[in-house]
Amino acid sequence: MIYAGIDLGGTTIKGALVSENGEILIQKAIPTGGERPHVEVVTDMANLILELMSTYGCDPEEVAAVGVGSPGSIDPENGVVVEANNFADFRNVPVREIMYGILDKPIYVDNDANVAALGESMFGAGEGQKNCVLCTLGTGLGGGVVIDGKIFSGAYHGGTELGHTVIVADGEQCTCGRKGCWEAYSSATAIIREARTAAEADPESKIHEVCGGDLSKLNAKMVFDAADMGDASAIRVKDDYIKYLGLGLTNMINIFQPEVMMIGGGVCAQGEKLLSPLRKILEREVFAGQFYKIKFRTATLGNDAGVIGAAMLGKINE
Amino acid sequence: MIYAGIDLGGTTIKGALVSENGEILIQKAIPTGGERPHVEVVTDMANLILELMSTYGCDPEEVAAVGVGSPGSIDPENGVVVEANNFADFRNVPVREIMYGILDKPIYVDNDANVAALGESMFGAGEGQKNCVLCTLGTGLGGGVVIDGKIFSGAYHGGTELGHTVIVADGEQCTCGRKGCWEAYSSATAIIREARTAAEADPESKIHEVCGGDLSKLNAKMVFDAADMGDASAIRVKDDYIKYLGLGLTNMINIFQPEVMMIGGGVCAQGEKLLSPLRKILEREVFAGQFYKIKFRTATLGNDAGVIGAAMLGKINE
Repeated sequence: MIYAGIDLGGTTIKGALVSENGEILIQKAIPTGGERPHVEVVTDMANLILELMSTYGCDPEEVAAVGVGSPGSIDPENGVVVEANNFADFRNVPVREIMYGILDKPIYVDNDANVAALGESMFGAGEGQKNCVLCTLGTGLGGGVVIDGKIFSGAYHGGTELGHTVIVADGEQCTCGRKGCWEAYSSATAIIREARTAAEADPESKIHEVCGGDLSKLNAKMVFDAADMGDASAIRVKDDYIKYLGLGLTNMINIFQPEVMMIGGGVCAQGEKLLSPLRKILEREVFAGQFYKIKFRTATLGNDAGVIGAAMLGKINE
Repeated sequence: MIYAGIDLGGTTIKGALVSENGEILIQKAIPTGGERPHVEVVTDMANLILELMSTYGCDPEEVAAVGVGSPGSIDPENGVVVEANNFADFRNVPVREIMYGILDKPIYVDNDANVAALGESMFGAGEGQKNCVLCTLGTGLGGGVVIDGKIFSGAYHGGTELGHTVIVADGEQCTCGRKGCWEAYSSATAIIREARTAAEADPESKIHEVCGGDLSKLNAKMVFDAADMGDASAIRVKDDYIKYLGLGLTNMINIFQPEVMMIGGGVCAQGEKLLSPLRKILEREVFAGQFYKIKFRTATLGNDAGVIGAAMLGKINE
């Protein structure tokens, strides 16, 4: 069978037909137009699936189900986007109902971070293991948890806010209102914030050089680059970042003890520069020395994790 | 049907026959004798069940299964206690095999903190909700998690070490080797430690009075008593304790979003003195203001949670 997936993003809607082995057979992205009435956005999502089936030339009967990954708060039981602040008119949107009316197929809806974790667990870094945690280090720190092959998101689907766990009591202000959240130390935003502060205090720092003298253009990679050049300020920022990231990852391993702990996001392009010191921390800190049981990996599906995971909602719900 | 439960403790083995409604029909405790060979201890456990069936006078056919809650690291799939340091000879103990040989009934084994959470979720503070977290504030801070009516303990049954999540980076030394674990701030041990330090620095503190001048006899209740007497040092210790307890509970709600968050242990006898300020913290701090969805309760089964939960292993595995 073939599974259709939609990755609803702030700027584009990405659609794909995916084989049961997680292979993308055909894909296309269209503009979201998130300022429009929700019915128009969701209708575009359904029509994108029709177009993909037609272009790929498959018998519509071959497509078993359609899965949608959406930002915001989701009610997977009813296939409703409860609220997605990125869009103008996304409150209590009956995505399943609207899409079913057009496609006449089972429609599944879940949160985008959750479906990315599902995709990675099945066909990415998780390699098909049934208990996986994905922490995505981006603007925020997003968590996705797969337990026994299914998405776990709490009783009311508002859980696994892994980034909003305090690791430094009374620490940095977080966007959620708390102080000292893991997200405020281990998101990409956090390393950039700390590097800017360090550069402002150190006019000789190579951090100025790597961003062409414009600290507003700084990204996580540049901080690692400056550290590679031996810059003391950048090394300190990088080492602190890794320390807090390792601390939070240890917390999550002590809680979930997954088969695979995965990290994703642009900063993971640093590969062993990031993984090697993290492994040392995890070996030392995970409860009862049990880190050896756990595979620790960077995510491998990149931007495709969302659409593949969304498609797989159909497969795991069969 | 009737379900038999064993709560294996450091000093006593408690056995009970439990109705399917969680009512204890008959119970008896015998000394553990943990210094003996494991086969003797486990044989005593099986014989205790035989004795209870005989005394209660039920047809052995009425007893559907036997569940065992044990301290230490457990392999529930194989019914083996992998390691329990409290006892002299408890490494890779085939509890299921030994007890099945005597009782000829399905035997289930799980960790004591996990079965207590199961018991509370089904017939205690959880009131039958299928997604519950129990944090027990004792010598340590033990966690038990029930998801979808089943015990969740991670891929290799070594997870839900909720107390061993760092909430104060570089903070108090924890027994697990990490610094700043929640357990080092919110166990009963922690409030006693802090109260002793405060009393040593404040010879006028009422903390000395409530423990009869012997700080080695201090317990958590005494700290609350001294705070009730208006003692500034005790109030500060109590307020700090509640702050960190609320912080960690918020973390766990943000991760698990359970239907019921339960706390247990002697300190919970403080009731509203503890719950009321905690509720204020949780209302303010839980992600996206979602605390209103969650029932926050103290455990109600007391010392019976373990034996009832152990018995219910048979029921949930039917």
